[in-house]
Amino acid sequence: MAYFPNVDKIKYEGTKTENPFAFRHYDPDEVIEGKTMKEHLRFAVAWWHTLTQDGSDPFGAPTNIRTWITDDPMQTSKNRVEAGFEFFEKLGVEYFCFHDVDIAPEGDSLEEFLANLDEITDLIKEKMDQTGIKLLWNTANMFTNPRFVHGAASSSNADVFAYSAAQVKKGLEISKKLGGKNYVFWGGREGYESLLNTDLPLEQDNIARFFHMAVDYAKEIKHDVQFLIEPKPLEPSKHQYDYDAATTMAFLQKYDLTDYFKLNLEANHATLAGHTFEHEITVARSYNALGSLDANQGDVLLGWDTDEFPTNIYDTTLAMYQVLENGGIAPGGINFDAKVRRSSFEMEDLFLAHIAGMDTFARGLKAAAKLKEDGFFTKELDRRYASYKTGIGKAIIDGKENLSSLADYALEHDQIKNQSNHLELLKSRLNDYLV
Amino acid sequence: MAYFPNVDKIKYEGTKTENPFAFRHYDPDEVIEGKTMKEHLRFAVAWWHTLTQDGSDPFGAPTNIRTWITDDPMQTSKNRVEAGFEFFEKLGVEYFCFHDVDIAPEGDSLEEFLANLDEITDLIKEKMDQTGIKLLWNTANMFTNPRFVHGAASSSNADVFAYSAAQVKKGLEISKKLGGKNYVFWGGREGYESLLNTDLPLEQDNIARFFHMAVDYAKEIKHDVQFLIEPKPLEPSKHQYDYDAATTMAFLQKYDLTDYFKLNLEANHATLAGHTFEHEITVARSYNALGSLDANQGDVLLGWDTDEFPTNIYDTTLAMYQVLENGGIAPGGINFDAKVRRSSFEMEDLFLAHIAGMDTFARGLKAAAKLKEDGFFTKELDRRYASYKTGIGKAIIDGKENLSSLADYALEHDQIKNQSNHLELLKSRLNDYLV
Amino acid sequence: MAYFPNVDKIKYEGTKTENPFAFRHYDPDEVIEGKTMKEHLRFAVAWWHTLTQDGSDPFGAPTNIRTWITDDPMQTSKNRVEAGFEFFEKLGVEYFCFHDVDIAPEGDSLEEFLANLDEITDLIKEKMDQTGIKLLWNTANMFTNPRFVHGAASSSNADVFAYSAAQVKKGLEISKKLGGKNYVFWGGREGYESLLNTDLPLEQDNIARFFHMAVDYAKEIKHDVQFLIEPKPLEPSKHQYDYDAATTMAFLQKYDLTDYFKLNLEANHATLAGHTFEHEITVARSYNALGSLDANQGDVLLGWDTDEFPTNIYDTTLAMYQVLENGGIAPGGINFDAKVRRSSFEMEDLFLAHIAGMDTFARGLKAAAKLKEDGFFTKELDRRYASYKTGIGKAIIDGKENLSSLADYALEHDQIKNQSNHLELLKSRLNDYLV
Amino acid sequence: MAYFPNVDKIKYEGTKTENPFAFRHYDPDEVIEGKTMKEHLRFAVAWWHTLTQDGSDPFGAPTNIRTWITDDPMQTSKNRVEAGFEFFEKLGVEYFCFHDVDIAPEGDSLEEFLANLDEITDLIKEKMDQTGIKLLWNTANMFTNPRFVHGAASSSNADVFAYSAAQVKKGLEISKKLGGKNYVFWGGREGYESLLNTDLPLEQDNIARFFHMAVDYAKEIKHDVQFLIEPKPLEPSKHQYDYDAATTMAFLQKYDLTDYFKLNLEANHATLAGHTFEHEITVARSYNALGSLDANQGDVLLGWDTDEFPTNIYDTTLAMYQVLENGGIAPGGINFDAKVRRSSFEMEDLFLAHIAGMDTFARGLKAAAKLKEDGFFTKELDRRYASYKTGIGKAIIDGKENLSSLADYALEHDQIKNQSNHLELLKSRLNDYLV
Repeated sequence: MAYFPNVDKIKYEGTKTENPFAFRHYDPDEVIEGKTMKEHLRFAVAWWHTLTQDGSDPFGAPTNIRTWITDDPMQTSKNRVEAGFEFFEKLGVEYFCFHDVDIAPEGDSLEEFLANLDEITDLIKEKMDQTGIKLLWNTANMFTNPRFVHGAASSSNADVFAYSAAQVKKGLEISKKLGGKNYVFWGGREGYESLLNTDLPLEQDNIARFFHMAVDYAKEIKHDVQFLIEPKPLEPSKHQYDYDAATTMAFLQKYDLTDYFKLNLEANHATLAGHTFEHEITVARSYNALGSLDANQGDVLLGWDTDEFPTNIYDTTLAMYQVLENGGIAPGGINFDAKVRRSSFEMEDLFLAHIAGMDTFARGLKAAAKLKEDGFFTKELDRRYASYKTGIGKAIIDGKENLSSLADYALEHDQIKNQSNHLELLKSRLNDYLV
Repeated sequence: MAYFPNVDKIKYEGTKTENPFAFRHYDPDEVIEGKTMKEHLRFAVAWWHTLTQDGSDPFGAPTNIRTWITDDPMQTSKNRVEAGFEFFEKLGVEYFCFHDVDIAPEGDSLEEFLANLDEITDLIKEKMDQTGIKLLWNTANMFTNPRFVHGAASSSNADVFAYSAAQVKKGLEISKKLGGKNYVFWGGREGYESLLNTDLPLEQDNIARFFHMAVDYAKEIKHDVQFLIEPKPLEPSKHQYDYDAATTMAFLQKYDLTDYFKLNLEANHATLAGHTFEHEITVARSYNALGSLDANQGDVLLGWDTDEFPTNIYDTTLAMYQVLENGGIAPGGINFDAKVRRSSFEMEDLFLAHIAGMDTFARGLKAAAKLKEDGFFTKELDRRYASYKTGIGKAIIDGKENLSSLADYALEHDQIKNQSNHLELLKSRLNDYLV
Repeated sequence: MAYFPNVDKIKYEGTKTENPFAFRHYDPDEVIEGKTMKEHLRFAVAWWHTLTQDGSDPFGAPTNIRTWITDDPMQTSKNRVEAGFEFFEKLGVEYFCFHDVDIAPEGDSLEEFLANLDEITDLIKEKMDQTGIKLLWNTANMFTNPRFVHGAASSSNADVFAYSAAQVKKGLEISKKLGGKNYVFWGGREGYESLLNTDLPLEQDNIARFFHMAVDYAKEIKHDVQFLIEPKPLEPSKHQYDYDAATTMAFLQKYDLTDYFKLNLEANHATLAGHTFEHEITVARSYNALGSLDANQGDVLLGWDTDEFPTNIYDTTLAMYQVLENGGIAPGGINFDAKVRRSSFEMEDLFLAHIAGMDTFARGLKAAAKLKEDGFFTKELDRRYASYKTGIGKAIIDGKENLSSLADYALEHDQIKNQSNHLELLKSRLNDYLV
Repeated sequence: MAYFPNVDKIKYEGTKTENPFAFRHYDPDEVIEGKTMKEHLRFAVAWWHTLTQDGSDPFGAPTNIRTWITDDPMQTSKNRVEAGFEFFEKLGVEYFCFHDVDIAPEGDSLEEFLANLDEITDLIKEKMDQTGIKLLWNTANMFTNPRFVHGAASSSNADVFAYSAAQVKKGLEISKKLGGKNYVFWGGREGYESLLNTDLPLEQDNIARFFHMAVDYAKEIKHDVQFLIEPKPLEPSKHQYDYDAATTMAFLQKYDLTDYFKLNLEANHATLAGHTFEHEITVARSYNALGSLDANQGDVLLGWDTDEFPTNIYDTTLAMYQVLENGGIAPGGINFDAKVRRSSFEMEDLFLAHIAGMDTFARGLKAAAKLKEDGFFTKELDRRYASYKTGIGKAIIDGKENLSSLADYALEHDQIKNQSNHLELLKSRLNDYLV
């Protein structure tokens, strides 16, 4: 049985097509900078937004029409596997991501949950083997169930810490079973509602203890996985510990975790923290910690995570430029952590929305490649920082100067000439690359 | 000649007084937790806001009436020293802080600037010796002069790096000369206007090089000073590198600077970065990096640094609680990085505003001491985190558990019971301490 | 059967008590400015937050323990009536508010819904008659059900407009039946997700048509009710039409509705729109449109509606000052549109949270009365605006001047002297009223 | 003497050119929808940002190199007239805008200021006659001078009201003299720093009195000018009265001013108020009050008015679509209320920045025309709102229904079917118009 009987495999048809179920810009096999678009972009579908999300919001009941839902939770989970792989294949996406609770019902006990996970991951593995579709990453949902009301690894209740450990242990085993190359932590409840009753140092220590246990267990089961942390400043917590890329790097350095962890950066989380997506990627790269990307976009005039499908070509161009400069995003990928608007509640909107996101990233990739080819950024950086290539600038870089020697120099060179950035010209020229 | 002839030494008169030139809550000699209020609070006056700030804003010309201004910049600077010490003494504040350009005119050359600084700091030293008033910290203003248009240590122009080095060298010499115990860096232009033309890794490396040179020079001149960085997320830059406490700690760890640097935290900078002041202090303490405080408050509905005098007793209470828990703020202090509103343009408003701030901090200190005495926070933390004192929780803390052992435990203890926080009760009770 | 068997009627016990189930500041019979606190404050409990809200959030499942929930929706609704009136009585609150869907299940058809409403409102009426507790206002929930995905009166689907009409018709009939004195509209879905597909003028016209129909129907059934609109800028919509008080007044004037509608202002909605609560109340009063208050508080560092119980005494003091100046809030009241934190999930937290809110408003009322008695604000306003009491200022107010006459005056009086506001002094003195 | 000797008249050269001093998209004579681009866009240069702005910011001294500055203020003003008209002509812009203080020094008395204005406007008029360049609008700066510290028409000091009247009287006379078609009010200081000492109703009444006097004087001197108000939510004031378009319409309706006033909308002011530029234009149009546009863009992650030159093609496309739908913007225009970045301090950056803005608007115009031609929006609106064209929807629009008749209808039609918006598809398709 097909869940999307009216949708065929999505093809690239170019901008002339009037077919909404076609790519206008994403041509998976088009070669750019020596790799196909598919290889560059490593798109993943997010199980939660595509297969379990229901269209509800804090003021509204579910709107989404999803034909896989039945009265039997396990049957629904199995249907989602069917529907998911049909969707991945028709869309032509090679990766997927999930939280444990997305794929299997929690049941009434931890034991039941683990058994359910086994049964469903067997089914998923079968589908993966049949289709060649791969697991970009999985994670444990340690924020939805009421037991996490006070946190998971940071919970004030040690039993919750233990429960979380059980979930992550299983998550790592599933990761190994399915050949996942990354394992993600997003600490939605690792933060606080109020500092009045929070022992922040203890909670941070506990999270670090938890991460070290995860690293140790991955070694124990000989699963060579890249751990990723996904920063977010807030929501659902009033304040989350992994506020942004830099905050997370402070934590990882403090607790000696930089060898095992990189960052999974999300566009909407960046803007909620007061940064651009590009900023977060640049910061991560400066710490050699760019792991993977969660592709979406926020509404910068709203203060919560809207998780819209990415359609802004400025954002995808600047993100893809960083990815190209990084030599690619593998073993990470570009995961659509994005949900259809509540008013886009029909089954086929799932295709339309992913096509929108994929086309927007394809445009971004093409523009970024052209920017790189033309040296748009590098020429400008060379021009601006030329003074560090010779003379006093080079001596500074080479570690040959100190305050006294520089002060002597400055006394001789105190009538300083700066050059204009011509930033408006730069911004205007960038526009011509977006086409 | 007196600049404030109509104001006598400000005295504590209690809440019954109708005299606006009196403290209603700050009694410098009142003993709290074994120290006088004066010893706890270590108040400092900020030279820039009190003696040089003119009341202008981006849409408005100066409004402040300041009788020390003359046509001769050096005379004006000398007048400010007179006026400043008269003000500090009458106010009963024992510390002050300044940027180099606050105290002396830059003149037409670096040489002239350094000479001016020598002359004025001689005068300041004389006044300090006479009055016993001390230097909490000084800093170099490397953001106002047009030469810093592209940054200081992060400038794309190496000559600016050198010029900055000359300023900081002098700043450290002045610090030693005046017995300053802290030396502050605030990187107002160390950030970017646009990532399109910014080499972020190079700029960060250069800032680190600069800081190491400063550390080396302090050692060279045998000046045992505590270096401080003051985080701020933005303004004047679109994005500053020292975004907040955690971001700064990431940087300091990366560049091996944590032995020399702590943080100077400002309330208004905290809220601009999306945090409470209390959060920033708590984070700094978790990194053992609480250095000093810039006391002011922002308007949380405005997106720029309003630098208002602190009058919110919630904020000062929670800040002072952290200070008490920290065992005090020395060698740092509480510096009023606050300016009178543009509409409070009369000379005497300087007194009224500082009295408001000092009274508000005095109330905060008293409330914090009572909170500590009653164990308001500690009882609640003990209750909440009790599960980590025994059993599985203690085993986690003691490093005796791993994912497997915890998973076994969780299978036996998966029906988790959490307790309510009763957070509303806690917030309501807190109110009774503010009185 | 009692739902809160362990809680007795909440009494005023003053600040010495250690009993958390007692008022520390709210003494219902204490007379202030000639009226009891109870008469001033006209507190109401919100059915939705207290009796139906479940503690879920966008990332979390329900946490609230509520013993009235059964498998039978009608029985649950009846239990809520029992529990509600027990709660109102024990708390000593004289008013309540509800949406239609809060009190009765929607069933499978409109007909069934209307019948359910009849049955439950009979029960409510009986309880009201027994207890003397009154209906402050009711409203129709036209935002939760998926049918309102595109709006209610502003829906792109005319059938939804009709359905909404049926709900409001019933709502007005219920209002009459239960003696409600206000009827509220909150347009959670009256706004847009995107302007790309929105006919804003048509949608606004339709809302106005809808409001006029409601006014006409109230007249028809001879129900002399005060209509209220509750502004909110956003959430769940990306942008709501009734953004804030002023925006709503623009709409009401345009569509000739000011004779029938006033405003129901909420503190958290104010801050989401970039205003203080006090601002919104002041603006409403300037349009003679202060109707009622939704008492809560937001977290100004978060961008969504947190609906916390009010515990900030600055906010309640300034709000209550405006209420006193307004000659009271009747026929409106102070409705706790506030929910217990997700971590305050026990039944008794409902009491603790309301007590916190009531005590905070009681403190605000007492402080406001003292401010009024002392002429704190009026003296300052008299001083500041004195120039409009005589001379040229009075002539301006009296309409005797024009640009030419004023220009002549200005030529003679162009060396203008302003006076300082001493705003810092004012803010500091305000603190002494909060005690 | 030429101020820009190295810049020739800017020509359209298309996207192939490498000449930075050429238009790549703006071809003034290209015909679109029956009018030339020049006629559609009615670009204006803002005197303040281009001729007087100095590159300072709250933390930085002036950076701009401007060769017209001399030690003699009147000579500098005259030089600016020369430079301005050279700039307007070379850029090919037909309109300009100014505040009174931009064009002439205030001198030491009002009398001197008026005389200076006469002398400079004589010179400007001469230049206008020579070149055919026109005045889009002028305004009085009633916010920079310290006399406006408490407001202008809303000042607590009646002498300031009178002084403001003198300025506006002169402004209207200059408008008549120079053939200005619009006259603008921006109330930068018409708002408050704190409500604690503000008589908001009195201040609003006074502003209305002031506006009526202006209307009366324009009639008196027989100058048929369109009055415009420019909304802005805040900055420099903590809260400005003309917060946004809707707030301003509430005020204009209350005080019976809608016949004389329309709105001058600025992109950056829109985002500061929590709206998109498109939203503000749409709201203004719904009140028949779209007057003119201030073209710039803000940084949505910053909380102050950055006044950047517009380079975002999404924004200009959606704005120009509204302008086309409005039948054009005349007698208003598109005024570049935008300043070069502080780091773009060279004289020629003024050209580069305006070219960037003009090219971006030209792209927006072309995209908007194509959207209109293809019926991109209208088709979607027709589809979405089809239910109001017939049946019950049409009856609602025609005023034939009431709550009772609709309730009857709803009982028969309560199983409502909505359609998906497919918003993601719409957004993706929009991208293809931006090229």
